[in-house]
Amino acid sequence: MTRSFSLAVVPGDGIGPEVTAQALQVLNLVAADHDAAFSSTEYDLGAKRWHATGETLPDSVLEEIRGHDAILLGAVGDPSVPSGVLERGLLLKLRFALDHYVNLRPSKLFPGVPTPLANPGAIDFVVVREGTEGPYVGNGGAIRVGTPHELATEVSINTAYGVERVVRDAFARAQARPRKKLTLVHKNNVLVHAGHLWTRTVDAVATEFPDVAVDYLHVDAATIFLVTDPARFDVIVTDNLFGDILTDLAAAITGGIGLAASGNVNPDRTAPSMFEPVHGSAPDIAGQHKADPTAAILSGALLLEHLGLPEAAARISSAVEADIAERGAAPRSTEEVGGAIASRVAEGVAVG
Amino acid sequence: MTRSFSLAVVPGDGIGPEVTAQALQVLNLVAADHDAAFSSTEYDLGAKRWHATGETLPDSVLEEIRGHDAILLGAVGDPSVPSGVLERGLLLKLRFALDHYVNLRPSKLFPGVPTPLANPGAIDFVVVREGTEGPYVGNGGAIRVGTPHELATEVSINTAYGVERVVRDAFARAQARPRKKLTLVHKNNVLVHAGHLWTRTVDAVATEFPDVAVDYLHVDAATIFLVTDPARFDVIVTDNLFGDILTDLAAAITGGIGLAASGNVNPDRTAPSMFEPVHGSAPDIAGQHKADPTAAILSGALLLEHLGLPEAAARISSAVEADIAERGAAPRSTEEVGGAIASRVAEGVAVG
Ligand SMILES: CC(C)[C@H](C(=O)O)[C@@H](O)C(=O)O
Ligand SMILES: CC(C)[C@H](C(=O)O)[C@@H](O)C(=O)O
Repeated sequence: MTRSFSLAVVPGDGIGPEVTAQALQVLNLVAADHDAAFSSTEYDLGAKRWHATGETLPDSVLEEIRGHDAILLGAVGDPSVPSGVLERGLLLKLRFALDHYVNLRPSKLFPGVPTPLANPGAIDFVVVREGTEGPYVGNGGAIRVGTPHELATEVSINTAYGVERVVRDAFARAQARPRKKLTLVHKNNVLVHAGHLWTRTVDAVATEFPDVAVDYLHVDAATIFLVTDPARFDVIVTDNLFGDILTDLAAAITGGIGLAASGNVNPDRTAPSMFEPVHGSAPDIAGQHKADPTAAILSGALLLEHLGLPEAAARISSAVEADIAERGAAPRSTEEVGGAIASRVAEGVAVG
Repeated sequence: MTRSFSLAVVPGDGIGPEVTAQALQVLNLVAADHDAAFSSTEYDLGAKRWHATGETLPDSVLEEIRGHDAILLGAVGDPSVPSGVLERGLLLKLRFALDHYVNLRPSKLFPGVPTPLANPGAIDFVVVREGTEGPYVGNGGAIRVGTPHELATEVSINTAYGVERVVRDAFARAQARPRKKLTLVHKNNVLVHAGHLWTRTVDAVATEFPDVAVDYLHVDAATIFLVTDPARFDVIVTDNLFGDILTDLAAAITGGIGLAASGNVNPDRTAPSMFEPVHGSAPDIAGQHKADPTAAILSGALLLEHLGLPEAAARISSAVEADIAERGAAPRSTEEVGGAIASRVAEGVAVG
C-alpha cells in the first residue's frame, strides 16, 4: 500500500529554487522505494511576488498551505526588498502561524568535511531552538522615526506555556540519544525575567527525565565551547534568537551552512511542519549553479522522519554521508551534487 | 612633573582579586617610569558584601567611585548569589550609572598564541559594543511567576541618541586604523525597529567619514565569519547583547578569555571609565593561583591609554606580547605570569 503525502513547496528567492529542485528529486526517488508518494504544490512566494503584488503571504495561501502534510522551503530574502519584509512577512509568518515551536537543527561533523577548527573532535549535537516566542515575536515599535529623538524597542515575550513545551520536547530528544545530555543556553544573569523562567522550567521538567544530565551555559560562554570543545554538546535547548546565532556558528564548525538542515516542527501536528536549509537565499550566487543543495536534501531527510519514514530518511543521510566522504577539491555544480546524491540513493535501493 | 591619578579598584569575586593584584603591580611599575603615579582605593563590592549586608552597590559608594579618574575591576559573580543579582546590581549598574556607552573590546591574535582555528589568518579587530542600551537596560518583568500562566518579557531599548554616539565613536576608531573598515552587526531582518535605527544611523554617520568602508552583517552570519575569516574584520560596531556574544567568541579564537581585555569607556569623560578583563569570576579555580592575569594586565594598558599615557600602555602591550611569544606548555601560576610580565616591563624601562 502506497502512502500519499502532499507537499507544499516554497522555493523562494535566490538559490532557493535551485536547491529545492534537487531536494525534491531526491525525495521523490526515495519515496517510490518506501511505498510512499509525494504530490507537490508549488507556491511562488518571495521577492518576485512581493514586487508584483505587494503580497508576502496572503491569508488564502496560508490556508491552502495549511492543508498539506508538510512544507519544503528553499530560502527567503532578496536585497531588492527592504530587510525584514519577506523574513517577517513570509518565513516567520509561516513559523508562527503554523506553530512551529520546535526549530530543530542537528549539527554533525561528517567524516571528510573541512572544518575551520584545528581539533574539532566528534561533533554530533542537535539544537532545539524555540520557534514561536522570544525576541522574534515582532512585538516592538518606534516613535519619532528619523529624528534625533527616535526610540525603538524590541520586546522578547516568553511564556511558561511556550517554554515548557519546547523544553519537554528537548528533554525527550535528549533521552532518546545515547549520551542523554541537555544544555540550556540563555543569558539569565542579565535577561533575568526570561532567563529565570527558562531556568526554572528546565529544573522542573528535569524531574520527569531523571536519566538526562542537565547543565546551563550563558550564550556568550556557549559560543566559546562551540569552538573549543563542541563535542561536549548533545542536545541544546535555547531561545529563538540565541538559537539563531548558535546554529549558524554550529553550521560553520561542521562544514558550513551548505550542509546544515533544519526542521520547523509542530510536534502536536496541528499544522504541517516545514523543512528548510539553515542557509539564506545567497543572491550573489543565485542562478549560477554553484549553490550546494546538500542542506536542502538533508532537510528532506528530516521531513521524511517527521512523516514517519525513518528508513527513507536514513537512506538520504547515508547517501549524503557517502557523497561527502568522497568530495574532492574540484567544485561541482548544484545539479552534479544533487545528481550524485540521487544516484547513491538509487544504489541504496538496489542493494538495500 | 608627576601626574597623579586616582584609581577605584573593585577586585570583586572569584579570581577577580588575584588577577587585579597583578594588574595593579604592573600599572604601578610602568607609571613610575612615565611621570605618573596612581593612588588606589579598594572597594569590597561583590558576593561577600552582598551576603554580609545585602548591598550590591550602595549609592554612597557609587558616588565615591565617581570621584576617581578610572576604575579597575576584576570580575563579578558567584554561584552562592542568585544569578543576576551582582551582574545587574553591581557590574551593569556601574556601566549604566557612569554612562560607559563604548564597551571597547580589542581582539588580536598574538604570535605564538594557541587558537582553536586551523587557519586563523591575521586577526586584529576591535569590537565597539554599545554599553548603555539594548536588551541590557533591565526593562522587563514577569507576571504569574511560577504558575503555568507565567509571562516574562525583556525589552530592548534603543535611542537615536544612544546609537548615534556609539556609532560615531566606532567610525572615529575605524578612521584611525590602517584598514579603515567598519562592520555593523545586528539582526535587522527580524528586529526591524531597533535594526533599522542602527542601519539608518550608520548610513547617516558614514557620510561624515567618507574614507571609512562600511558593511553590514546579521549577527548569525557574523559568528560564521569569526571562525571562517576573522581577518576580514577591522572595527565592529554592535548592540549590547550581540557585542557580549561576539566578544566571547572573538576571545576564544584569539587564545581564550584569559587574554581578552576590555574598557567600559565614557568618551565624554563625564564619569570615570572602567577597565576589566572579559572573563568572569571563574569560581571553580579561585584561590588556586591558576588564573591567567594577562587579560587584567592588558585591561590596565587600555586604562593607561584612556588616561593619556599611550607610551606607558604600549610598554605593557609589548611586555605581554613578548611574554606570550615565549610561553611554553608548562603551566605557570597567576603570580608567575604577572611577575614575568612585570619584569619585561621593567626591562623595557632599562632599554627604552
Ligand atoms: C532569515 C531569518 C529570518 C532566519 C532567522 O533569523 O530565523 C534565518 O537566519 C534562520 O536561521 O532561519
Ligand atoms: C557578567 C555579565 C553581566 C557581562 C555581560 O554580559 O556584559 C559579561 O559577560 C561581559 O561580557 O562583560
